[in-house]
Amino acid sequence: MINFQFYSPTEFVFGKDSELRVAHLLKKHGATKVLFHYGGGSIKRSGLYDRVVNTLKENNIPYVELGGVVPNPRLSLVNEGIKIVKENHIDFILAVGGGSVMDSAKAIAIGTKYNGDLWDLYTGTKIKEALSVGVIVTIPASGSEASNSSVITNDKLGLKKGTNSDLIRPKFAIMNPELTYTIPNYHAFAGVVDMMSHIFERYLTNTPDVDLTDLMQEAVLISIMDNAKRLLKDPRDYNARAHIMWAGTIAHNGILGVGRTTDWASHGLEHELSALYDVSHGAGLAVIFPHYMLYTLDHDVDRYYRLAVNVMKVKPNVSDKRNVAIKGIRKLQAFYKSLGMPLTFDDIGAKKVDIPKLVKQLEINRGSIFGGFIDLTMDDARKIYESCL
Amino acid sequence: MINFQFYSPTEFVFGKDSELRVAHLLKKHGATKVLFHYGGGSIKRSGLYDRVVNTLKENNIPYVELGGVVPNPRLSLVNEGIKIVKENHIDFILAVGGGSVMDSAKAIAIGTKYNGDLWDLYTGTKIKEALSVGVIVTIPASGSEASNSSVITNDKLGLKKGTNSDLIRPKFAIMNPELTYTIPNYHAFAGVVDMMSHIFERYLTNTPDVDLTDLMQEAVLISIMDNAKRLLKDPRDYNARAHIMWAGTIAHNGILGVGRTTDWASHGLEHELSALYDVSHGAGLAVIFPHYMLYTLDHDVDRYYRLAVNVMKVKPNVSDKRNVAIKGIRKLQAFYKSLGMPLTFDDIGAKKVDIPKLVKQLEINRGSIFGGFIDLTMDDARKIYESCL
Repeated sequence: MINFQFYSPTEFVFGKDSELRVAHLLKKHGATKVLFHYGGGSIKRSGLYDRVVNTLKENNIPYVELGGVVPNPRLSLVNEGIKIVKENHIDFILAVGGGSVMDSAKAIAIGTKYNGDLWDLYTGTKIKEALSVGVIVTIPASGSEASNSSVITNDKLGLKKGTNSDLIRPKFAIMNPELTYTIPNYHAFAGVVDMMSHIFERYLTNTPDVDLTDLMQEAVLISIMDNAKRLLKDPRDYNARAHIMWAGTIAHNGILGVGRTTDWASHGLEHELSALYDVSHGAGLAVIFPHYMLYTLDHDVDRYYRLAVNVMKVKPNVSDKRNVAIKGIRKLQAFYKSLGMPLTFDDIGAKKVDIPKLVKQLEINRGSIFGGFIDLTMDDARKIYESCL
Repeated sequence: MINFQFYSPTEFVFGKDSELRVAHLLKKHGATKVLFHYGGGSIKRSGLYDRVVNTLKENNIPYVELGGVVPNPRLSLVNEGIKIVKENHIDFILAVGGGSVMDSAKAIAIGTKYNGDLWDLYTGTKIKEALSVGVIVTIPASGSEASNSSVITNDKLGLKKGTNSDLIRPKFAIMNPELTYTIPNYHAFAGVVDMMSHIFERYLTNTPDVDLTDLMQEAVLISIMDNAKRLLKDPRDYNARAHIMWAGTIAHNGILGVGRTTDWASHGLEHELSALYDVSHGAGLAVIFPHYMLYTLDHDVDRYYRLAVNVMKVKPNVSDKRNVAIKGIRKLQAFYKSLGMPLTFDDIGAKKVDIPKLVKQLEINRGSIFGGFIDLTMDDARKIYESCL
């Protein structure tokens, strides 16, 4: 086990009607004036918007609104948010939505406190200060409610980049599984792929002898898959929604990755798909990750064998581990397919002719070699993209 | 899944040499004058005492010492600590030791901020304020480094009671597995029983459909047992020590108990053994918990069957679940025995003649009915104690 630091100070309030506690939590965490940040019309249609607004008004918490966050959230809107926050002397950002809204809120939180171009903080400059952020989660997927990360698309440069700091972990996260009943299946299951991928990125380690986190990761993966299957049958299965929602948090608050190297190559490869085709991150990961697994299989057959047996429930066969491992990855693809997720470039409208462009952008974003599991070169990246055709 | 709130804001710094960061962490968390609280001579013999003192001095952090914490920490020493803190205008308590030292530090932290008899806060009065506490953990067992609880023995009244509040979760926890190399086996393995019991208390739930936490609990239990077996062979196995140390934290920071009812009857039953015989808490739990499991078996055979199959690796047999469940509990006892832990009253010098006294004290401490798994009456308690003979 390698040395680690783990700090997850977010206060989670989970369950039915938990959104009614937003005013209490804002006050508890020192908010005096709030930026109410959200996406499109879904929170208005669901009535959540009205409930939040009413609670803020009833509790005399002044706020300014900024809606309009889109998937793969844009730097331009973030900059607009920073301007509003500064002009209105806002001291707390309340994000109501999914990962895009939360990541956009985090970007505003650090941009407000940074004297310079915010993009610096996504390209190497260390985050030193941030405004407080609280969230009401409506889409379980990104784990951003608990994570130390924010991913933003620079719409001018056509680049998508992430940054990390414990300073951007939300102060509180309100999570009501009932708010997720109306998510269209495609988005709900893209979320499932996203959270599973957050675990796979940690599962693919070169640190030996880390069984505690291995076993915990496997536990969460099994639970996510079981409960996704339940949702296919009944989208209003409260316990299934609750399991998936909390699993998404656990998957990315860091607790499953302590004491070990992690990978994140597939996230890098996928971000280029999202940037070029505006495909949902989870859907892109459903395409990339199994192909990445096949490509890196021989780097550690034992690890993929273990995944196949412990999580994908392939029959063990120690005399043919490689084949068992491949069966596990194929079973993962079959599971993604059963959820209506794409498996190939074709399925998401990505084109062979674009691969050089994807690789070029990848190199700009990640450098010529990246990843924690293998040293992934741009030649590897090209081959992996090609294997997705 | 039932509604829950989860808040674990402790900053964990884990690994080799992590204790060297104590001054940095004290400053980061606002300490200007420190109570350095510890137990007996073990931290002096190991050199940890000198390292902490040197670091505090080098970093110009003023401190006052209070050693002398004993297992089942005493209210009298806590009151002495409160006096020292008030007289010296101390604003941070640094606990260096195991669960007793950490619990004693937490008691001082709340007692300093309470205008009244500290024992009130252990007998129902709500904790409203607390001084900050940071810890350097030397014995993995209690999970107190991450927990919201403190257990204190009132040496005047002969009572042992616990209290809970998120306000007493430590600001930071420094955890260096190498510091645990020299723990005598008996204490190390009592710690193992303690952390396993923290999970069992959460495993014994009446909330249906909580598979995510069930699976995670099983994962941590399996890892603890595997690594305890490694320690039997080699007490200086770093990775085994590291696994057990971190598992002890996970077992009791609350993440394994979210969204479900929990039990804590065995802790109640055991506390009376510790109070009367001054037996180590973990050793007492090794006696109590398996007998409690056998006593409550028919309340939920399926749950004990699951424990037997998934954790204790008893061969499944759905047509005779009860017998499989019993085999699982017997296997747990055999495991405890392999660690040199006691299994019966005889093994810890507890006497049949004392049972009425134990039950009487239990009733004073817990009321006539308690526990979250079954409604445990004093008649049940007597029968469980008798089954331990």
